Amino acid sequence: MKVIQSIQEMQQQMRIMKKQGYEIGFVPTMGYLHEGHLTLVEQARRENDVVVMSIFVNPLQFGPNEDFERYPRDFERDERLAEEKGVDFLFYPHMDDMYPEGFSIKMTVENRVNVLCGESRPGHFDGVVTVLAKLFNIVLPDRAYFGMKDAQQVAVVEGLIADYNFPVKLVPVKIIREQDGLAKSSRNVYLTDKERSEAPQLFRSLQQAATTIEAGERVVKKIIDSIRKNIDKNTSGKIDYVEILSYPDLETLTVLEGRFIIALAVQFERARLIDNITITLE
Amino acid sequence: MKVIQSIQEMQQQMRIMKKQGYEIGFVPTMGYLHEGHLTLVEQARRENDVVVMSIFVNPLQFGPNEDFERYPRDFERDERLAEEKGVDFLFYPHMDDMYPEGFSIKMTVENRVNVLCGESRPGHFDGVVTVLAKLFNIVLPDRAYFGMKDAQQVAVVEGLIADYNFPVKLVPVKIIREQDGLAKSSRNVYLTDKERSEAPQLFRSLQQAATTIEAGERVVKKIIDSIRKNIDKNTSGKIDYVEILSYPDLETLTVLEGRFIIALAVQFERARLIDNITITLE
Repeated sequence: MKVIQSIQEMQQQMRIMKKQGYEIGFVPTMGYLHEGHLTLVEQARRENDVVVMSIFVNPLQFGPNEDFERYPRDFERDERLAEEKGVDFLFYPHMDDMYPEGFSIKMTVENRVNVLCGESRPGHFDGVVTVLAKLFNIVLPDRAYFGMKDAQQVAVVEGLIADYNFPVKLVPVKIIREQDGLAKSSRNVYLTDKERSEAPQLFRSLQQAATTIEAGERVVKKIIDSIRKNIDKNTSGKIDYVEILSYPDLETLTVLEGRFIIALAVQFERARLIDNITITLE
Repeated sequence: MKVIQSIQEMQQQMRIMKKQGYEIGFVPTMGYLHEGHLTLVEQARRENDVVVMSIFVNPLQFGPNEDFERYPRDFERDERLAEEKGVDFLFYPHMDDMYPEGFSIKMTVENRVNVLCGESRPGHFDGVVTVLAKLFNIVLPDRAYFGMKDAQQVAVVEGLIADYNFPVKLVPVKIIREQDGLAKSSRNVYLTDKERSEAPQLFRSLQQAATTIEAGERVVKKIIDSIRKNIDKNTSGKIDYVEILSYPDLETLTVLEGRFIIALAVQFERARLIDNITITLE
């Protein structure tokens, strides 16, 4: 595995790879790798000739109340994990090179952002698309891998690729779960034993909703109410949101049709958990 | 020459060209081609294996008082001229494909825009960078050609390429002039005979400024005053602006140093003429 810090060198290497006909799979991360990232790498490894991971804690996607400085970092551990999983190039740029003085062209996302987690993170996705537009141009990937755990991010990145015609295929990777259905997350360790035993109810309530939809239910409000009731009854968490939206447009629905997402966020004492499922009705 | 309207087909063709190792030169235009455009094509032809021209009247770069609908169009003539000059691919996309319903990620330029012609065209360069980001991703050029007549546009596009790391080399092409020095422009035909005989004074006053700078003058205000005096005395035009700015940052200077531009705009009765020179002091 080659670690590259220079933007120019990275882009140059990728141009050489492409000229040789190699297909490039890309896993952008902010480092502090967990199983989710490594699953993305595994899939990228299977589907491409060259696998690139980037590690860059992107200041633009942090809000004023979100602590960019305190975001966890452990480059040496990340480097080891990436190499073990078969990453070929680890791109680890300097902040001053990514956003030099005079950086002055901003991207702003208008759709898909004021719902779900985006509602409480104004400007977050502006930062996400800005850094991804840069990374796509530097890494020149054929495929970019994103976890469906953050389904809203996947939707926004689909928007970026479509709006700006990036020659990149977005590959959404399904949520990895514990045996009991709880979506894997580095935050799960902050759950108390009692909370941990309740937490699988999040996914279970999504599954129950899927079952009632399969049985013919189409009224969004009824489905949401039943998910909320389920979570209120079976967990000590406080519901942040339960939403059903068209996917990937993330627009409000009252009656189900086409492709949509059921997504929720629940605040436990020291961990806020999110989960979702997407369903397509023919 | 192949005319392509489909975004997907264009991108696909260019990916094939690149895989074969061909270098792509790109001349983006809004059509209604004139000698300036054709000079760009000539240079692109000399420096690349494949030459792509795009014709797309971009609604995003027109202000509310600038008539997008009435912008002149003559595709058949453009097609003939492009073919004669050796364009290989003429990309002529539909507006609904470039900006489909749901297009929602905007680019905003913060630097280099509130000076020169940009001062009276708020939002113009936001539209320019948005369409160019799209075109770069579709055409995948190695080099993109822009005329220095619109030096501010060149500066803004340099900003776009730098800020977003597009793997594209911008090639600025020098201003083409009539024998008497007047910068060529489709607007020159709107000059009266008297105005046409005065108009070379614009370039002459820029040349005189260059001469005084060569002789040691470094005070910006003095140089600007002398250019204004020259134009007021020798033409019937009304000065819109005479500015000296660092280049390509387009920041105000009081004392000359490094690379800078001297640019002016003069309003004649039915034509507004612009001209500029760039100078580098070692």
